[in-house]
Amino acid sequence: IGGSSKSDSSGVSNSGESSKESSRCSTPVLDADRTDRLRDKMKRRIESGDHWFSLEFFPPRTASGAVNLISRFDRMGSGGPLFIDVTWHPAGDPGSDKETSSMMIASTAVNYCGLESVLHLTCCNQTKEKITAHLNKAKRLGLKNIMALRGDPIGEDWVEEDGGFNYATDLVKHIRCEFDDYFDICVAGYPTGHPEAESYDNDLRHLKEKVDAGAHFIVTQLFFRAETFLRFVKNCRAIGITCPILPGIFPIQGYHSLRQLVKLSKLEVPEEIMQVIEPIKDNDAAIRSYGIQQAVEMCKVLLASGEVPGLHFYTLNREVATIEVLRQLGLWAEDPRRPLPWAVSAHPKRKVEDVRPIFWASRPKSYIYRTQDWDDFPNGRWGNSSSPAFGELTDYYLFYLKSKSPKEALLQMWGEELMNEGSVYEVFTNYITGQTNPSGHKVMCLPWNDDPLAPETNLLKDELEKVNRRGILTINSQPNINGKPSSDPIVGWGPAGGYVFQKAYLEFFTSSENVTALLQVLKKYEPRVNYHIVNVQGKNITNAHEMQPNAVTWGIFPGREIIQPTVVDPVSFMYWKDEAFALWIEQWAKLYEDESPSRMIIQYIHDNYFLVNLVDNDFPLDSCLWQVIEDMFATDQITVT
Amino acid sequence: IGGSSKSDSSGVSNSGESSKESSRCSTPVLDADRTDRLRDKMKRRIESGDHWFSLEFFPPRTASGAVNLISRFDRMGSGGPLFIDVTWHPAGDPGSDKETSSMMIASTAVNYCGLESVLHLTCCNQTKEKITAHLNKAKRLGLKNIMALRGDPIGEDWVEEDGGFNYATDLVKHIRCEFDDYFDICVAGYPTGHPEAESYDNDLRHLKEKVDAGAHFIVTQLFFRAETFLRFVKNCRAIGITCPILPGIFPIQGYHSLRQLVKLSKLEVPEEIMQVIEPIKDNDAAIRSYGIQQAVEMCKVLLASGEVPGLHFYTLNREVATIEVLRQLGLWAEDPRRPLPWAVSAHPKRKVEDVRPIFWASRPKSYIYRTQDWDDFPNGRWGNSSSPAFGELTDYYLFYLKSKSPKEALLQMWGEELMNEGSVYEVFTNYITGQTNPSGHKVMCLPWNDDPLAPETNLLKDELEKVNRRGILTINSQPNINGKPSSDPIVGWGPAGGYVFQKAYLEFFTSSENVTALLQVLKKYEPRVNYHIVNVQGKNITNAHEMQPNAVTWGIFPGREIIQPTVVDPVSFMYWKDEAFALWIEQWAKLYEDESPSRMIIQYIHDNYFLVNLVDNDFPLDSCLWQVIEDMFATDQITVT
Repeated sequence: IGGSSKSDSSGVSNSGESSKESSRCSTPVLDADRTDRLRDKMKRRIESGDHWFSLEFFPPRTASGAVNLISRFDRMGSGGPLFIDVTWHPAGDPGSDKETSSMMIASTAVNYCGLESVLHLTCCNQTKEKITAHLNKAKRLGLKNIMALRGDPIGEDWVEEDGGFNYATDLVKHIRCEFDDYFDICVAGYPTGHPEAESYDNDLRHLKEKVDAGAHFIVTQLFFRAETFLRFVKNCRAIGITCPILPGIFPIQGYHSLRQLVKLSKLEVPEEIMQVIEPIKDNDAAIRSYGIQQAVEMCKVLLASGEVPGLHFYTLNREVATIEVLRQLGLWAEDPRRPLPWAVSAHPKRKVEDVRPIFWASRPKSYIYRTQDWDDFPNGRWGNSSSPAFGELTDYYLFYLKSKSPKEALLQMWGEELMNEGSVYEVFTNYITGQTNPSGHKVMCLPWNDDPLAPETNLLKDELEKVNRRGILTINSQPNINGKPSSDPIVGWGPAGGYVFQKAYLEFFTSSENVTALLQVLKKYEPRVNYHIVNVQGKNITNAHEMQPNAVTWGIFPGREIIQPTVVDPVSFMYWKDEAFALWIEQWAKLYEDESPSRMIIQYIHDNYFLVNLVDNDFPLDSCLWQVIEDMFATDQITVT
Repeated sequence: IGGSSKSDSSGVSNSGESSKESSRCSTPVLDADRTDRLRDKMKRRIESGDHWFSLEFFPPRTASGAVNLISRFDRMGSGGPLFIDVTWHPAGDPGSDKETSSMMIASTAVNYCGLESVLHLTCCNQTKEKITAHLNKAKRLGLKNIMALRGDPIGEDWVEEDGGFNYATDLVKHIRCEFDDYFDICVAGYPTGHPEAESYDNDLRHLKEKVDAGAHFIVTQLFFRAETFLRFVKNCRAIGITCPILPGIFPIQGYHSLRQLVKLSKLEVPEEIMQVIEPIKDNDAAIRSYGIQQAVEMCKVLLASGEVPGLHFYTLNREVATIEVLRQLGLWAEDPRRPLPWAVSAHPKRKVEDVRPIFWASRPKSYIYRTQDWDDFPNGRWGNSSSPAFGELTDYYLFYLKSKSPKEALLQMWGEELMNEGSVYEVFTNYITGQTNPSGHKVMCLPWNDDPLAPETNLLKDELEKVNRRGILTINSQPNINGKPSSDPIVGWGPAGGYVFQKAYLEFFTSSENVTALLQVLKKYEPRVNYHIVNVQGKNITNAHEMQPNAVTWGIFPGREIIQPTVVDPVSFMYWKDEAFALWIEQWAKLYEDESPSRMIIQYIHDNYFLVNLVDNDFPLDSCLWQVIEDMFATDQITVT
């Protein structure tokens, strides 16, 4: 597996080059693939002989299931799938704006997780208008690929309608007719023939029709023997189907799920598999282990055949078995190089985005959400940050911005009862150190950080612990970096052979007393340290230019312009400030009863503390920001005395 | 004198900040002043108490005089004048496109020398239409400031015309009326009264009228005593003239020039000066020395008075005396910090330009000339480098692109008679080393380098000498730099407190045999070294992306985005290639007779050599480019053997 084989859906491409017209600085186009279509990606991967994989998911039933599925997208996305696909659940209002709809899940995968995504769409019992509306909506949401299916007719006595959608072929034709070449289209293939088809050959002819109508590739129904698939491919080729045919792989994950699937798909499980499974049917671990082994062996045969450019996995929304199979096949990209320090969105409109404010570093989905209406990412950045029109906080409760943890877990982490501001300092400190709190729970997240400490932040752990203990409540930070290789496992990003740089950054809440001392101290650090200090009312103290962003992360690469993906932007900081203060109330204070002491403590902090960010511009030297804090505490002492 | 006092006309401002609307990366706006008007610059300097100076020149009579004057602009511009002004010579077709016209000289100062410039304009005996046409042309050429004068009537029996331009006031009103607030307007003041005025008081009232009509500042006629000027300022203020009044300083440079000037201006030289000068009237050096001393002393009194924000020098197109006076006053900015590695044009259209291809580094005027029609410098760079519409080489003979040296001097430097290609290698080598050639002349310039080696290139002198001796004919190079302070006297640029970086760059002509060996060698240096190799027919061999520029100079500064002012741009390289090859013929071959052996040697090189550029992307390591050349020679040896 070459380097580029891991690259497509994660947006990384070391060797790929841009076909862009302009050679502007701020469109460095790290990843040519961002402008490419799924079919082109497949074509290149076939040509280079790099095998790929793709992952199928179904929409969750509940909002919390959606939050979990999206976390899974993030985790499984890191392995480098070429695409994921989301099934269409006609019974679940699949085209709606509900957080659990097929449409919204696929949109989230594209926009927030940066995954190339295929949306399933079934057509039977649907009007043309309805289908067109779905497709328009999908297009608007940034979806570029459709899996065109007939779907299961409702009821037993289904009859074909004249001029209606009776077959997937009709849907393919409709998509082509109404949307020309906009969507890449996938259709389903049945290695043993569609259960309702008159015959295997007849079904093959139907498949040929679908492809001729304008489909770009085929994903097959699951099967249990490599030879089943290979015979099917041979037969497809024989009747002139030339597009990629991807085998649907189903690692057996349990006895009951297998039986259910077999029933639904009207497939027969081969005798040799049943013989192994039946005796161990109550031993989940043993079945799962067998399923993995069976899938790995079958996939090896498929890949070795030369007929299989990529593998399509039916994940059943689970990750362990699929990842294990991919690991054993060497297809799982353990540590994909990041094209930029933040995850690149797969929405075509955002494909040239190449710089973001640092403030949302731990809340990238919030940033994407709040900037989703920006039509304009000229040169990959906000059009005009003086009027950036961030999405309102009133839309704030969007499901994927909520904490993944239930209320009880949050209370266990952040304290059932707060005694004073010091209790809050302790929560922050425990989050940094990873130590358990008095009630025995680890603080795994904070309102501003939904995940444990980033590896990079870990570099600053000792200093962070020290200052959080004393009421410097840090929510974002990065160390200074003076030219580490772009391949560095912790701080590296971008193409091979480059160097990455950072200015030290520290962002925290702290009391107004501390701010008074801090301002005195900062005079000594002019112009080395830039600061923005703001409270919830918007009182804003800064020594930075009111419009000019400060680049705090940049990279230098062979044969390219400079890339500066992260900036401290004074204008967007004021938008972030609103969000950062609101998180105190929305995520923390509201865990407690109205008027309760705990709630009042958080409310007090919200009302009286300042949000501070500091940049040490002198990146080649050791960061002076810790010394700034030390000096601040020393000044505090004097003031008190 | 504070740091910012030296900054205006050189475009440098360390403390100034941008008032730009956008916060785009590629518009870092190092220099707020670039967007400012002359009157605003004066206002800020007055407020900060930073004294300035300005320089007056007159148009030269000959084309070679123009070439010399422009060199003088470059030299005197480096001292940091707030502006220069160019007088209007009604008898010399001043508004024409002739290289010696007032209009073209002022335009050259703005566009090619990056100097804030004031164009004089006289109005008597001119139609309104003609004046408006001049002003429109000036505006189109990037001129933003006009010195509005009446000018000398032709003939003795001049009578006022009704509705015509009889006084400078009429011209000021006309400019305001036709061009609103576009131009900053300067008018002349006469410390001893205009020679034709009825009275001193009457003249003062005329001046008041000119200012009231819309002038922004006053420059005075020369005078010989500080008290003359100070009384004049007092009288101006008394009648309500509040704008800046700049004293015209005339350092006496010779007996005859003084007498001539006195005659023309109808001024009286004070007795105390005549008494000193008369006895030494045949000793030029003594008079010049006295003139400097006299001017310095008078200027000191003026500056100390608190009434004088800046000094205006009548240079008579000479530089020694004026520079000496300014040096003694501490107003000459010996080593002004560069805002960017190349001189910034003062044309308002180009004010956001912040990146250029490296190829024209030694021919910046050619670059400005060839890109002068680019309306669009979005984000300070070319609109679309895939169709950059460089000016044609057919316009190539523009006077300021010609060598400053006459043909005889060029022949002395480059050889009256060339024996073989080796003779050419020798010329290149002598240029690098600064040693005299066999005929006893130093090679001060080459067709691609009109000036002696830059201090930065000097850092590479030994290596350059070695390779030029062996037929690597270098025309452009820079060392790698891994984070030197922006204040570094040799390689520094940009605001204080920053760091500058470079990738090593080498550009040279060499034989096709060398190129064959080089290409073999370069395989070992992938992807560390990017190369473009091209011959005059356009055969183009490269391992770089066809559109993507490679940033080879960049800077990191406090509170700013990254600045990357120099790139190796593949598209513009093909335009540069045409120019670089043409210089062999136009500047060198044509020195010799048709069919002469010398000419045929240059023609052979032109027809058969390749132009090569190499970038070592691994800037933190020692440059590998010298090793690449070494390896190439070694491979050559093997091939020959």
